[in-house]
Amino acid sequence: MNQDLIAGIDLGGTKILTAVADRQGNILSEIYLPTEAERGTSVILNNLCRSVSLAMSKAGFQGEPGALGIGVPGAVDKGIVHLAPNLGWKEFDLGRELPRIFNCKVETANDANLAALGEYVFGAGQGSSNMLYVTVSTGIGAGIVYRGELFTGESGTAGELGHTTILPEGPLCTCGNYGCLEALASGTSIARQARELVKAGYGQGILPYVDKHLSAKAVGQAARNGDADAIRIIEGAGRYLGLGLSIAVNLLNPSRIILGGGVMDMSDLLWPSLEKEFNTRAHRGAKKVVKLVPAALGSRSGLMGAVALARRLR
Amino acid sequence: MNQDLIAGIDLGGTKILTAVADRQGNILSEIYLPTEAERGTSVILNNLCRSVSLAMSKAGFQGEPGALGIGVPGAVDKGIVHLAPNLGWKEFDLGRELPRIFNCKVETANDANLAALGEYVFGAGQGSSNMLYVTVSTGIGAGIVYRGELFTGESGTAGELGHTTILPEGPLCTCGNYGCLEALASGTSIARQARELVKAGYGQGILPYVDKHLSAKAVGQAARNGDADAIRIIEGAGRYLGLGLSIAVNLLNPSRIILGGGVMDMSDLLWPSLEKEFNTRAHRGAKKVVKLVPAALGSRSGLMGAVALARRLR
Repeated sequence: MNQDLIAGIDLGGTKILTAVADRQGNILSEIYLPTEAERGTSVILNNLCRSVSLAMSKAGFQGEPGALGIGVPGAVDKGIVHLAPNLGWKEFDLGRELPRIFNCKVETANDANLAALGEYVFGAGQGSSNMLYVTVSTGIGAGIVYRGELFTGESGTAGELGHTTILPEGPLCTCGNYGCLEALASGTSIARQARELVKAGYGQGILPYVDKHLSAKAVGQAARNGDADAIRIIEGAGRYLGLGLSIAVNLLNPSRIILGGGVMDMSDLLWPSLEKEFNTRAHRGAKKVVKLVPAALGSRSGLMGAVALARRLR
Repeated sequence: MNQDLIAGIDLGGTKILTAVADRQGNILSEIYLPTEAERGTSVILNNLCRSVSLAMSKAGFQGEPGALGIGVPGAVDKGIVHLAPNLGWKEFDLGRELPRIFNCKVETANDANLAALGEYVFGAGQGSSNMLYVTVSTGIGAGIVYRGELFTGESGTAGELGHTTILPEGPLCTCGNYGCLEALASGTSIARQARELVKAGYGQGILPYVDKHLSAKAVGQAARNGDADAIRIIEGAGRYLGLGLSIAVNLLNPSRIILGGGVMDMSDLLWPSLEKEFNTRAHRGAKKVVKLVPAALGSRSGLMGAVALARRLR
């Protein structure tokens, strides 16, 4: 074992990102492997093990690192993965399996929580010990840092902003509820709104940007080129995001909100309506101390959070 | 100074409740004085001082207690009262004034936060180290306990559930925003809805219960006696409360929500619609671990929280 080294894994539904770092968090190597989730749990676990070996080799070392942090795409608490649909896991005791693969200290956490920790320790959250990280992508997730530690709640599900009701009579969400933020402002929702518009005979200005299927990215490109329908959809999503963030800020009173995820690649389009709605809705006291900023680590925030988690293990 | 004694003060806009207790939290005496806020800050401070002396005398002691906790009706952080309209305080440095009055250790906190702490230490929150206390009264406030400590956020305003948008196109709130929970479900809102109904020529079944002016209590009595208009108003308030609690539970993932405040005196009328909406809206994982329960300390939760705060001072 190499006590001076740590490793982080961002375990996703399609790929496993792994980094080896020194105890200061300087990255020595990074690799990725396919998850092969469709081949079942033993293959996933084997790939986790292989990914660490390969990353260690690439960094010039043999054996294991001294500590390992793993981000899981789903609800996880004290090693139990309650639900991770992309991995086919439900009430899966990952914490029991890991000592069979790794001899070092290992800790698991939800990927959005680790992305928050990653931004706090290495990214746009540095110096802000009370912060909220929100990822707007296919879905919407959030992680909370309070007094420099992850705020996970009673069973690890704190920060469930994506499935929080923003518009009580709003559209049906995949979770079965109506008007969740995710059903109003995620990439999936932006694409769905555009598809519905096209189906109804409108939104023709979006079609030239469609590649295979109508994605949020196409809507963004159409909006950037001045298409009024696309602009209306993007601005609407920004408004709902601003509303959702005002709710989170009222309850949590953070000093920073960090916005990441693929949809934030069009933050230039979303930001004005987002900020306006946020400023209208957030309560005075909480608004006064908070700053909204873009994420600094991009798609690596979860991976860096896993490294930060490992660094805390002794 | 009596190091074995502690005292708590619940400083309100109209009265000052003060209790002296031993270090275990057993109450030895309780008194109340009028605040006399209209006579200005020096009178308020003098009354605070007097209230402690009187409570100590009543308990059979002279001099000061060893530690004192004070709940303030407004936004307070590290001794600075940012805003307490009922006391006429704005950016008032209470923390600087207190050592001029008291020689013992003193700590201040927001009254809703202290009510949460009171219920956690002495009331319906015992054993639940991650909990949310919500008071539904003239206004709506909340306090959060996380891992057995008050969760206050960056500047002491965490838990601002009353001024959180629940219905984006809802009625105007006193804070200037639209559709805040307080504008939809507080006692003030229940009374306002009934008054509007009467003004429009309906709600005649509520009038027999009106005493001086149309209060939420009158609406509750009419509802209890089967008046359909009153029932609709109360059930509506319950529904919005359920929606608001679902949002808080998604973000905070507590194991208990404790409901207090005057409006909860009609919890038998509110509870069914509240619980139904909450169960529809709250996300699965968070809902699974949380219980909704009524407060146990009634109007004394804030006072007991001040005692609990003092007990933690050494």
